[in-house]
Amino acid sequence: MPARPCVFCAIIAGDLPATMIYEGEHMVAFFDHKPVFRGHTLLVPKQHIQVLSDLPAAEVAEFFQMAQRLERAIEDGLPSDGSMVLINNVISQSVPHLHLHVIPRNTKDGLRFFLGPRHPYNADHPAETYADKIRAALTSQ
Amino acid sequence: MPARPCVFCAIIAGDLPATMIYEGEHMVAFFDHKPVFRGHTLLVPKQHIQVLSDLPAAEVAEFFQMAQRLERAIEDGLPSDGSMVLINNVISQSVPHLHLHVIPRNTKDGLRFFLGPRHPYNADHPAETYADKIRAALTSQ
Repeated sequence: MPARPCVFCAIIAGDLPATMIYEGEHMVAFFDHKPVFRGHTLLVPKQHIQVLSDLPAAEVAEFFQMAQRLERAIEDGLPSDGSMVLINNVISQSVPHLHLHVIPRNTKDGLRFFLGPRHPYNADHPAETYADKIRAALTSQ
Repeated sequence: MPARPCVFCAIIAGDLPATMIYEGEHMVAFFDHKPVFRGHTLLVPKQHIQVLSDLPAAEVAEFFQMAQRLERAIEDGLPSDGSMVLINNVISQSVPHLHLHVIPRNTKDGLRFFLGPRHPYNADHPAETYADKIRAALTSQ
């Protein structure tokens, strides 16, 4: 548990209400209280970790196989035409406890994202310069 | 391979250029050619499948452990303050071949998403109605 109370830890402990969709040994799924679209679900590990890369390697399969099940259940159950699966790490992360959004999507649902300008590569910003940094960091892991 | 040529299958086959970040037996990672921010990387299974739930269960751990490595490499290597990890299933999916975006994020980077109105639950749209549909679909899987 973090020093400051964590909203998701409180939901997991039963101290705050939420519309529960699933509870397992290692994770829970409940509705986002401010849904982008109705049915917007959060998959949350019970362990208080912050970002995707904090998820222990041994738990990755179980977590994302559950994400696959939620995707299917939302698309088949609501139903919806598709979905968006999203994790914000640090930036835009409203609660600093790892959560995977599964958001139902439909044709012409009005959701636009990436509205800001794109940042193309060019002579001042060659793709290889950025690629080299990421490749080097991968290699040194 | 799909009936119509798939851009990502062509990149994987070496028939179209891309800035490659990683190549393994089952997947590749390369730069998005229209980056939201520079360093925006796509993780793509070599097998032509469309959505997250099409990924064979046996490959889920390897795929998302690589997503974890890319997250760390982008955050540590560029560096960036955080990242967004995102999969579009069908809607907003520009190439119908599963791809996971890892997008570097920074404080005040100007990216806003979810700009449309939220869709709250209310008496006409009770959360439990939506939750029941998703729970029933989960149970019947």
